[in-house]
Amino acid sequence: MPRLAFWYEFASTYSYLSALRIETLAAEAGVEIVWRPFLLGPIFAAQGWSTSPFNLYPAKGRYMVRDIERIAAERGLVFRLPDAFPQNGLAAARLATFGVEEGWVAPFTRAVFSAEFAEGRDIADPAVLAAILERIGVAAAPALAAAGSDPIRARLRRTTAEAEHIGIFGAPSFVCEDGELYWGDDRLHAALDHTAEFQRRGERKSY
Amino acid sequence: MPRLAFWYEFASTYSYLSALRIETLAAEAGVEIVWRPFLLGPIFAAQGWSTSPFNLYPAKGRYMVRDIERIAAERGLVFRLPDAFPQNGLAAARLATFGVEEGWVAPFTRAVFSAEFAEGRDIADPAVLAAILERIGVAAAPALAAAGSDPIRARLRRTTAEAEHIGIFGAPSFVCEDGELYWGDDRLHAALDHTAEFQRRGERKSY
Repeated sequence: MPRLAFWYEFASTYSYLSALRIETLAAEAGVEIVWRPFLLGPIFAAQGWSTSPFNLYPAKGRYMVRDIERIAAERGLVFRLPDAFPQNGLAAARLATFGVEEGWVAPFTRAVFSAEFAEGRDIADPAVLAAILERIGVAAAPALAAAGSDPIRARLRRTTAEAEHIGIFGAPSFVCEDGELYWGDDRLHAALDHTAEFQRRGERKSY
Repeated sequence: MPRLAFWYEFASTYSYLSALRIETLAAEAGVEIVWRPFLLGPIFAAQGWSTSPFNLYPAKGRYMVRDIERIAAERGLVFRLPDAFPQNGLAAARLATFGVEEGWVAPFTRAVFSAEFAEGRDIADPAVLAAILERIGVAAAPALAAAGSDPIRARLRRTTAEAEHIGIFGAPSFVCEDGELYWGDDRLHAALDHTAEFQRRGERKSY
């Protein structure tokens, strides 16, 4: 199956929208998803932003909330902006990085986004993350220890550097095997179509 | 017919995409378009931007060009970024403001966007604007004189202030009769659907 890389940041509201539907849409399109949790913070900092653009530009922030409310209602999803926004997604991103190796990144990612944007939980809280891990059948203590280890921290730093290197500036982003980049939940269908089309034309390259 | 306000800025690449398809889509949806040319410059300046965010953030700018190229190809539109970007759309916006009164804003808007983003013309050049006016059957000299008059300049300033007041922060934006705001060419279908649905529910208000 052709692959599509799904780059996401746990603090990102539009990443929530994509995380909750990407597996269904990818299965329908015959595309395999490569989960790439990363951190937007360093990329925003490099362009001079100290927080989310939705906080820096209040009109844009108000619009984002309304836009997501409308889309969530259409998709039957619950959405409420957490009291503190953006949340610190570092611990969740390290766990997800470990979860890629261990094979549970998909259910973990979905559960974290739902805890954050449907249940209003604080995803920087180790107790919240531990409960999520246990709920998806992963022993929490060893996973939290592994996620805080030097190799995982280094891997997440490399992933984030790679995101910046390939031109990612926001989340979610989708990168096809031929390098085509798509930004935003509203480009997910286009990214899947491009990936499937690329495969049909027999132009698949190594990834 | 229910009405949808189309807020656009002549320097905006995504406004080009919407301007070239909005009449067809609105006719299909049974919606009347209210053309609202305005200036993004003062709104960007108020949030500390001295130029387009696509220039301030180069990764975003490169992505925007590719994104528009892909969408334009799908829709059978020509697209090339002008050598100077963003172009100064002030003279065109004043003419369009006059064209709203005179009934030729739609063909004028389409022709300006095509000159700018398909033909690579400089839309700040009065000769380019004069040629466009003549092509759509409007006598150029009196239109250019009227567009430069105090009442039209004041009207465009008021329109831009209104845009900021109702929370517009980018272009294109679409505002429904119940105040719902949609931002971006990729929200045009949603804005039209919402407008038609609103009408069906019989909740039409005065505009």
